[in-house]
Amino acid sequence: MKILIINGPNLNLLGTREPEIYGTVSMEGYLDGLRCEFPSLELEYYQSNIEGEMINCLQKDDFDALVINPGAYTHYSYAIADCLKNINKPKIEVHISNIYKREEFRQKSVTAAHTDAVLSGFGMDGYRLAVLSLI
Amino acid sequence: MKILIINGPNLNLLGTREPEIYGTVSMEGYLDGLRCEFPSLELEYYQSNIEGEMINCLQKDDFDALVINPGAYTHYSYAIADCLKNINKPKIEVHISNIYKREEFRQKSVTAAHTDAVLSGFGMDGYRLAVLSLI
Amino acid sequence: MKILIINGPNLNLLGTREPEIYGTVSMEGYLDGLRCEFPSLELEYYQSNIEGEMINCLQKDDFDALVINPGAYTHYSYAIADCLKNINKPKIEVHISNIYKREEFRQKSVTAAHTDAVLSGFGMDGYRLAVLSLI
Amino acid sequence: MKILIINGPNLNLLGTREPEIYGTVSMEGYLDGLRCEFPSLELEYYQSNIEGEMINCLQKDDFDALVINPGAYTHYSYAIADCLKNINKPKIEVHISNIYKREEFRQKSVTAAHTDAVLSGFGMDGYRLAVLSLI
Amino acid sequence: MKILIINGPNLNLLGTREPEIYGTVSMEGYLDGLRCEFPSLELEYYQSNIEGEMINCLQKDDFDALVINPGAYTHYSYAIADCLKNINKPKIEVHISNIYKREEFRQKSVTAAHTDAVLSGFGMDGYRLAVLSLI
Amino acid sequence: MKILIINGPNLNLLGTREPEIYGTVSMEGYLDGLRCEFPSLELEYYQSNIEGEMINCLQKDDFDALVINPGAYTHYSYAIADCLKNINKPKIEVHISNIYKREEFRQKSVTAAHTDAVLSGFGMDGYRLAVLSLI
Amino acid sequence: MKILIINGPNLNLLGTREPEIYGTVSMEGYLDGLRCEFPSLELEYYQSNIEGEMINCLQKDDFDALVINPGAYTHYSYAIADCLKNINKPKIEVHISNIYKREEFRQKSVTAAHTDAVLSGFGMDGYRLAVLSLI
Amino acid sequence: MKILIINGPNLNLLGTREPEIYGTVSMEGYLDGLRCEFPSLELEYYQSNIEGEMINCLQKDDFDALVINPGAYTHYSYAIADCLKNINKPKIEVHISNIYKREEFRQKSVTAAHTDAVLSGFGMDGYRLAVLSLI
Amino acid sequence: MKILIINGPNLNLLGTREPEIYGTVSMEGYLDGLRCEFPSLELEYYQSNIEGEMINCLQKDDFDALVINPGAYTHYSYAIADCLKNINKPKIEVHISNIYKREEFRQKSVTAAHTDAVLSGFGMDGYRLAVLSLI
Amino acid sequence: MKILIINGPNLNLLGTREPEIYGTVSMEGYLDGLRCEFPSLELEYYQSNIEGEMINCLQKDDFDALVINPGAYTHYSYAIADCLKNINKPKIEVHISNIYKREEFRQKSVTAAHTDAVLSGFGMDGYRLAVLSLI
Amino acid sequence: MKILIINGPNLNLLGTREPEIYGTVSMEGYLDGLRCEFPSLELEYYQSNIEGEMINCLQKDDFDALVINPGAYTHYSYAIADCLKNINKPKIEVHISNIYKREEFRQKSVTAAHTDAVLSGFGMDGYRLAVLSLI
Amino acid sequence: MKILIINGPNLNLLGTREPEIYGTVSMEGYLDGLRCEFPSLELEYYQSNIEGEMINCLQKDDFDALVINPGAYTHYSYAIADCLKNINKPKIEVHISNIYKREEFRQKSVTAAHTDAVLSGFGMDGYRLAVLSLI
Repeated sequence: MKILIINGPNLNLLGTREPEIYGTVSMEGYLDGLRCEFPSLELEYYQSNIEGEMINCLQKDDFDALVINPGAYTHYSYAIADCLKNINKPKIEVHISNIYKREEFRQKSVTAAHTDAVLSGFGMDGYRLAVLSLI
Repeated sequence: MKILIINGPNLNLLGTREPEIYGTVSMEGYLDGLRCEFPSLELEYYQSNIEGEMINCLQKDDFDALVINPGAYTHYSYAIADCLKNINKPKIEVHISNIYKREEFRQKSVTAAHTDAVLSGFGMDGYRLAVLSLI
Repeated sequence: MKILIINGPNLNLLGTREPEIYGTVSMEGYLDGLRCEFPSLELEYYQSNIEGEMINCLQKDDFDALVINPGAYTHYSYAIADCLKNINKPKIEVHISNIYKREEFRQKSVTAAHTDAVLSGFGMDGYRLAVLSLI
Repeated sequence: MKILIINGPNLNLLGTREPEIYGTVSMEGYLDGLRCEFPSLELEYYQSNIEGEMINCLQKDDFDALVINPGAYTHYSYAIADCLKNINKPKIEVHISNIYKREEFRQKSVTAAHTDAVLSGFGMDGYRLAVLSLI
Repeated sequence: MKILIINGPNLNLLGTREPEIYGTVSMEGYLDGLRCEFPSLELEYYQSNIEGEMINCLQKDDFDALVINPGAYTHYSYAIADCLKNINKPKIEVHISNIYKREEFRQKSVTAAHTDAVLSGFGMDGYRLAVLSLI
Repeated sequence: MKILIINGPNLNLLGTREPEIYGTVSMEGYLDGLRCEFPSLELEYYQSNIEGEMINCLQKDDFDALVINPGAYTHYSYAIADCLKNINKPKIEVHISNIYKREEFRQKSVTAAHTDAVLSGFGMDGYRLAVLSLI
Repeated sequence: MKILIINGPNLNLLGTREPEIYGTVSMEGYLDGLRCEFPSLELEYYQSNIEGEMINCLQKDDFDALVINPGAYTHYSYAIADCLKNINKPKIEVHISNIYKREEFRQKSVTAAHTDAVLSGFGMDGYRLAVLSLI
Repeated sequence: MKILIINGPNLNLLGTREPEIYGTVSMEGYLDGLRCEFPSLELEYYQSNIEGEMINCLQKDDFDALVINPGAYTHYSYAIADCLKNINKPKIEVHISNIYKREEFRQKSVTAAHTDAVLSGFGMDGYRLAVLSLI
Repeated sequence: MKILIINGPNLNLLGTREPEIYGTVSMEGYLDGLRCEFPSLELEYYQSNIEGEMINCLQKDDFDALVINPGAYTHYSYAIADCLKNINKPKIEVHISNIYKREEFRQKSVTAAHTDAVLSGFGMDGYRLAVLSLI
Repeated sequence: MKILIINGPNLNLLGTREPEIYGTVSMEGYLDGLRCEFPSLELEYYQSNIEGEMINCLQKDDFDALVINPGAYTHYSYAIADCLKNINKPKIEVHISNIYKREEFRQKSVTAAHTDAVLSGFGMDGYRLAVLSLI
Repeated sequence: MKILIINGPNLNLLGTREPEIYGTVSMEGYLDGLRCEFPSLELEYYQSNIEGEMINCLQKDDFDALVINPGAYTHYSYAIADCLKNINKPKIEVHISNIYKREEFRQKSVTAAHTDAVLSGFGMDGYRLAVLSLI
Repeated sequence: MKILIINGPNLNLLGTREPEIYGTVSMEGYLDGLRCEFPSLELEYYQSNIEGEMINCLQKDDFDALVINPGAYTHYSYAIADCLKNINKPKIEVHISNIYKREEFRQKSVTAAHTDAVLSGFGMDGYRLAVLSLI
């Protein structure tokens, strides 16, 4: 089973920036841990700061399930939302922080309605829970 | 470790009503499964249709962690929200359906900001993921 | 044919309070009249000031048709609305006063969309018309 | 006793259009039934697609009671509302479908505050209940 | 093939008023040109300033396809919208000017959702494009 | 100098209805008085309850100046507003009552921006002041 | 009969600034004309840029009738509105320009509901019409 | 003189929770002090987390004056508001913290309009001031 | 202990205007009573209709505690709010009438968040309660 | 004559995804048909999922006319809107589906005001009509 | 070249109040520095807490350029905005703090549209940059 | 000292497009002038039409201070805002035109709260003032 984990803008900085919100673990380090825990899974990772490149990646549709953290694009990218709507695979939206504790604009997700389920506030562990739910 | 799982109004009907949204498993049957999977955990369950009784139960504060699905009260019970704010234990809010796919009013949660994390759309499995994240 | 007539908060005071809006007949007296007029019907009556107890009563689902006046809960109880949605019996919502002549917040009903029909402004006679429409 | 039953735009098509919402009975056929049921009543019927012609008809004020279904004008005709305000006779507003189950704009009635009572969702039977309440 | 072209209020003045927005061609002159270009089509034309008369005309339903420019009624006539919903023929809404360049209220169309397609900003040529799309 | 005085819906009832707001003088009686006071003026009067007939009358454009009281259409008739925009003559909008003292919806005028000036709250005398300002 | 004419901020510049909106006549020159036309009236004039000084002047209440142009304070001075509410004399609000043709915020008057009538768009002549209506 | 002091949800925790907002005195301790200070008064105390039980208590109407702190229900319980409206005794609404310094939703009180006066931000001392104002 | 009592616009008229809302006692008379009751306090009084003069007075900061009734400025004077924010003394906001029973705009206070506590609806007695709470 | 046809995000999937909305014809196949029908035109085609690349393409400005379907960017890309504003060539905005029949957010176009005309709901045929209108 | 620097309410306290936002330098001290740096400029300074006095000062119009910090009046004084609109000299609006980092209401400026440019967040140095831009 | 000057979409066209708003100087020419004026500064320049590439550039964080004009992204790019929040260097936001004089949507900046200061309306000179403020 191949799972695409795709992260949006500024999430390449996980582990080095705003550690009080996002923790000190880098995404790469975290993924290594996940791959050890789930050796039978193929966990592909992609990150881009560019909205359209995320769409390019998603349109390849060469995976069995999707874990997506669209970052700030969660709140206004109808383009990513339209793209997700086109994907008929299990899809989980993950947010590292609890978006309900943050700014008003972060309470609105234009993408979540086009995924199957949403996780918010579990820190990096959210990715692991998402993977767990998919298997 | 003692975890309180508390459900709000109409969730006593899980398994018999609106199966296309909530599935056909009853909460009791589901909990039995969880208790088997996690024999070392004490999983206490409480359900009430009455907002204030949920608060009464929460105020006892005799648990180590909390999994709460406030049902429709999620969207307007500032009283439950105030109560959750007072509880300094790990707290997870669970919604069985993906609230982003449903009516507009279900997109607003007045309680989520007073929990640590939120899960939505995983079906009954959301309770299991919540428990997993707590241990 | 068994019809449940269920009234929400403050409607136990019918006949004694705010007679200029709600009239001077008590609910019990009124029901006696109805039972005389419709001897073949079983008219069960329940009233509670407690939102969740109304849900408890409705969930019993031991009636053939429903006449409900949710009182002030009409305007914010998504919990009662969710409960009504689960009931597959003929359901009529009754308001004694014409809610369009009163405060702005009374123009919004969160429960009416989950009933079959709505009556407003007929005074106590609204219950009789509701019963008439059910038979 | 003379009752004016007045219908607004597109209600001349009752019985032939959108039968899933409005049923298959024509207004004329329905009125014949009512007249048989209430032989002592004079039931006058008027329908127009033209807002101002409805006002012309209402201004004649040659009736003892009024049953009005303003159709789509319910939601924006302050002109009909002003006219209704001028009529000091018993006045009932009828909607065939339950307007709370339909589009958002149908939840607002600018005319209802100037009638005595409102019926919504009883199908054609709403006219009969309105007549019943007037006698 | 018979196409009804129906225009709403103030569009009888095309060619003489506000030429900077609507051009200098009269509707009649323009239709003559269209009839020459499409000799096999029956192009029936109707214009009224009266909302309900437009509905009267539309209800006849004696055409194979419809081109409608509801003028200012576009923005508030739920009565015309309800009428259009009842017509199961190809339906095109035309606006001479680009409504997105004009006042805020002109950006909202209550009728467009009940037509198949919308054209805006092509000047008088919009009618011709609509006819072209229908054949 | 010919002045068209045009009144909208329900203003044919001036003098007989809601005298506490609109006074007890009929429009005809009032106009007789005005014609005596201004013998050199031609004061033409038109009233209709039908929005589109008001437009028909206005489009004739056979006057030197205009005094208009659109009644309830003031608040939603973009069709009359579009028509007024087309008239390049002195134009005064009159309201008998002070619209700022009445319902919220009466504070918005969609027509006033297309007249030169507005008078509100002078009772019937508003027509006289409008005529005075035109001469 | 003594009439107080009171002008608000920036209206001391009438005649010299923004002549395309407010004309080229100074208030003083205009008042001289009015006094000639109505020799039996005592026309007292006051202008201040200071909201509270306008209130000080109004509170003296040593006049028989009031003509007020609150300038920009029209749109937010609840303090002046409260003061006007206290004055039981004939009160007319005047605006030189047609406020319906200007910015959105100028369409709202917080003071007009506490005057008897409102004039807008008659240029300086609005003061004369106001005086005429008072006598 | 008998005064009912009634507190809403979570106010049973006064003195132990959120002391930085609500202080460290328990309600019971505080009441003892009040009773000492006002020996001639009968100070009855009731607290419930359940909205409808608060209504049950209020409906008994066996007191001469009322001091109510509806807690979070202040902001959405139209049911309690309706109940208060029915009570023709002196009624004071008390909030321990200054609600204007807290979340946006706490600035709206649906109950305050049905009490005589409101106190906010005086800490526990608010109850004492309320009692003082009643005697 | 020196307490500044400062009143905003139109409050110099207390006792003579709108007695049904504000009572018939003048502020001066009322203060005399207070000074008798609290002989050890220095009660300084200031009133102005001018927003900026109230700020001038507040900026002197020569008092130990503050009782302020900003009148209509309560609802829009961010300038007074900024000034209050600068004052680190006990500060009470008083409203004579219950602002929750009055117009919508009076429900919003831009100043209250910068005071310690708010009293509304106690009539003139509100000033006394404020003083009591300060000592 | 060279016409640039530019499509936004997800429109590279035309013909394979959501055929119930967008049909089964691919853009390339469709363009071949258009080029056959209009052999004298140079129809250049560009598609990108990346907002800024669409701007890069548009800024080249090496065409005589423009047909643009910005896809989801229609609803929020002020950057593309600013770019279109800079292009002084005939410009047509095309939407394949009737956007008035879809989600609320699709009713708002931030780009349309900077094009000459808009077509919506004609399916792929919309591109052909746009080309027709340009020649 | 004469530049008027005009400050609004509470800005006379610069240097002594809220130093964490506004710094510890007094305006007078700061101006001395500026005058040294720009000896050829005449830097006139005016401050008032009174809205109308600021207008009085601005209306003198005896300067070549204007630097204005309207303080809290920025957000609601349409009177100052109207006054600025009348001044045809270079005009710069300065805010000491970054208004985008502060309360919601501070994000709206009713005056800025009537100045040439706006500076926000540079501390006292904003005045110097404004002067630099004017020369 | 190295300063990154980064411009967003369409700002590569400075000097050639919309000169009435943005002037006729190209960014490159302007930067040459700045570099001459400040020879000791390293002024690095970057421009992109692509939101994510701007983020890529900003994330390098190889500068001592930042001057950013996000162009249209100012108004909706929460992705750039999140990125700016991560940069702990002096940061100035520059807008060439006075955004308060333009469309409503340009009054909202989602990025400004994450910079230190904002300049708007100084034309190209805004960049120079920003640099001046940084040194």
